Amino acid sequence: MPNWIYPDFEFRPKRPLFLCIISNTDTGKIPGLSAAGTTPELTDYTPGADAELVETNKIITMPELPEAPGGSPTPAIVTKAALNLTGIPSLFVASGLRKKPAIPYVELGGAAGSDIRKQTAVPDARALYENAELLGKKLARLSDCVFIGESIAGGTTTALAVLKALGYEGNVSSSFATNPLELKAQVVQEAMARAKIKEGSLKNDPLKAVRELGDPMMPSALGVMRGLLGTKVVLAGGTQMAAVLALAKALQIEGDISIATTKYIIEDRTAGFKDIVESLGIPYYYSDPGLENSKIPPVQIYAQGYVKEGVGMGGAALLAAINGVPQRRLVEETDHVLTTVELPKS
Amino acid sequence: MPNWIYPDFEFRPKRPLFLCIISNTDTGKIPGLSAAGTTPELTDYTPGADAELVETNKIITMPELPEAPGGSPTPAIVTKAALNLTGIPSLFVASGLRKKPAIPYVELGGAAGSDIRKQTAVPDARALYENAELLGKKLARLSDCVFIGESIAGGTTTALAVLKALGYEGNVSSSFATNPLELKAQVVQEAMARAKIKEGSLKNDPLKAVRELGDPMMPSALGVMRGLLGTKVVLAGGTQMAAVLALAKALQIEGDISIATTKYIIEDRTAGFKDIVESLGIPYYYSDPGLENSKIPPVQIYAQGYVKEGVGMGGAALLAAINGVPQRRLVEETDHVLTTVELPKS
Repeated sequence: MPNWIYPDFEFRPKRPLFLCIISNTDTGKIPGLSAAGTTPELTDYTPGADAELVETNKIITMPELPEAPGGSPTPAIVTKAALNLTGIPSLFVASGLRKKPAIPYVELGGAAGSDIRKQTAVPDARALYENAELLGKKLARLSDCVFIGESIAGGTTTALAVLKALGYEGNVSSSFATNPLELKAQVVQEAMARAKIKEGSLKNDPLKAVRELGDPMMPSALGVMRGLLGTKVVLAGGTQMAAVLALAKALQIEGDISIATTKYIIEDRTAGFKDIVESLGIPYYYSDPGLENSKIPPVQIYAQGYVKEGVGMGGAALLAAINGVPQRRLVEETDHVLTTVELPKS
Repeated sequence: MPNWIYPDFEFRPKRPLFLCIISNTDTGKIPGLSAAGTTPELTDYTPGADAELVETNKIITMPELPEAPGGSPTPAIVTKAALNLTGIPSLFVASGLRKKPAIPYVELGGAAGSDIRKQTAVPDARALYENAELLGKKLARLSDCVFIGESIAGGTTTALAVLKALGYEGNVSSSFATNPLELKAQVVQEAMARAKIKEGSLKNDPLKAVRELGDPMMPSALGVMRGLLGTKVVLAGGTQMAAVLALAKALQIEGDISIATTKYIIEDRTAGFKDIVESLGIPYYYSDPGLENSKIPPVQIYAQGYVKEGVGMGGAALLAAINGVPQRRLVEETDHVLTTVELPKS
C-alpha cells in the first residue's frame, strides 16, 4: 500500500482513463469569487489552458500560466506530473466552454453558464446530460476505471447553490487560502431568490437545480457517470465533485462510484466535504501530494491551503501512488513541469 | 470463418473502436464531383449528419438524410447497422469541419479544405497531424484495434491528386455509379499546375502533398495512425484510404496496418484500389454487405455500384462478420436503420 493515500485504494485498473471536464461560467467572473485566473476576463481561458498544459506541457491559447491571485500556479501542474509518471491517458471534455483549447478534446456542446444571480444558469442541462451519457457509454467499452476531474472557475459557488437546493447543509471549499464564504452565500441567496428556489425544494428535481443554479460541468459529469455503468468511476475533486455526487444520488445513477481528492480539501475546516460525502454513503480517498517539499515557494504554499484542488489533482496523484510512484518523485516532477512549461511568446 | 469477408480476418479484437474522421472541403463543392449531398451547399452538413445518424439514429443538424443524387441513402446506415449489431463503440473526429454535429465528437481543429484548384488545400496539415498523433496515443492505451473511416465529400478527388503527387498510377473510385473521371483529372491537373507540382515530385514530401492537394481528413488519419503504434490499425475505406496508406508509407509510419473496404470497391473497374494497396504491400480485406437483398430499392442499388463505400461501411461490416453477424442480419438491420431514422421536423 502506498503510504501517501488514505485509505488504501485497493483496485488496480488495467486501462485507467483520466477524464477532465472543462467549462466556463459568468458566475466565475464575479469579482472575488474564484482564484482561477488573475483577472475575471482571463477566467474563460483557464480551463483550456489547463488542458493544453496537461496534454502538451505548453500554454497555447492563454497569454500566461493560469494562476491564483496569491501567485500559486494551476493545479494542472500536479495532474500533469502524475500523468507523466504513469503514462495514463487523459481526455479533456468541453461542456459549455467558450475558449477552446488547441489540443484534441471531446466537444459536448452547450453554452457557457450564466451568472446564477441573473438568469437560468444552464438552459441546456438536459441536452448536455444526454450527450455526455453517450460519451460515457463509449468509454465504458474501453476503460475499466475512469477518473473524472474538472476545471471550471467559480465552480464551488455553483456547487454550494446546488447543494442548498438539494437540501444539504455545510459549506464548500475555495481556491483562495481565505474562503470568501460570505460572498458565496450572498451570490447563492440572490440566485435562489431569482429562481424562487428554497433550501431543499429541488431534492426531487436535480436537473432543475443544475439548470437554474449549477454550471455546465455538472450535467456532463453526471451523464458520463450514468453512461459508465459497469466501469469503475472515481470523481476527482473536492466540494464541487461532492455536489455532483449529491446530484447523482438524486438522479439515482447507479454504479461503482467513489471520490478522490487532496489532503488539502480534507483539512479545509471551512468546508463540509467529508460531511456531504459521508452522508451520501460514498467511499472517499485522498492523497497527500507532499508539496511542502517543492523547491518552488508558490508550489510549497499549496500545503498551506492555497488552491487545494482542481483539474483532478488529488485523483491524479492517487493514480500515481497506486502505480508505485513515491511522493517525493511526484513533487520533483511537479517542479519539473512548472519549470519547463512553454508559454506563448509575448 | 464468416463467409462474407475475404480473405479471413484472423484477429479477434477484445476492445475494438470504430473511429471516423469527418471533414469539409471546397473541392467537394465543385459541381459534379461528389455524390455526398444532393446539392453542393448541403455537402458541408453531410459528415456531421453521418455522425448523428451513427451515434443516435437521428439527423439533427441537416434538413434531410444525406443521400446521393441517384437517391441512395448515405452508407452511414450500413455502418450504423453493423455497430448496432456488435455494440462496438464509435468515435467521430472533426478535422477541418465547418458544420459540427450535435453529438459528442473529438475536435482536432483546423479549417475546412480549400478548392485545390485555387489555393493551398490544408495550410494547417502539420498541426492536424501532430494533434491527431496525440489522440492516437491516448487511444492506443484503451483499444487493441482501431478502425479508421471517413466522411468527406469530394475526398476521392483529393486522393487522386495526392496519389499523383506521390507518383502513383491509377484512378480512384466514385460515389456515383458512373465515375466522373475526366472532371476529377481536370481538377487535379489544374491544382498541380497551380502548386507547380509534377507527378511524383512530392514522393519525399508527403505532408506537402497533403497541404497543397489533399484534404483535412488525411493528416488526421495519418496522425492517429502514427500515435496508435502498438495497436492494430485497420483503415476503413476505398481509394481515399488507399491514398492515406500511400502517404503513411512515405511518412514511414510503422505498425500493424491494414485496410478493409467493400466488395463494391474491389469490383470497381474504373479504380485502382487493389493496384495501389498491393504495390504498398499492405494486407487488404473486403466485406460483401449483400445489399442486393435489401427490401428497399435505393439500398439494393448499392450492389450495382452506387455509393460503394464511405463512413467506414466496409470495415464496419467486417467487424460485424467477425463478431458472428450473418450477412442477412446486417441487411435487415440496415433496412431497419433506414426506415426508423428520425429526421428533423420541417
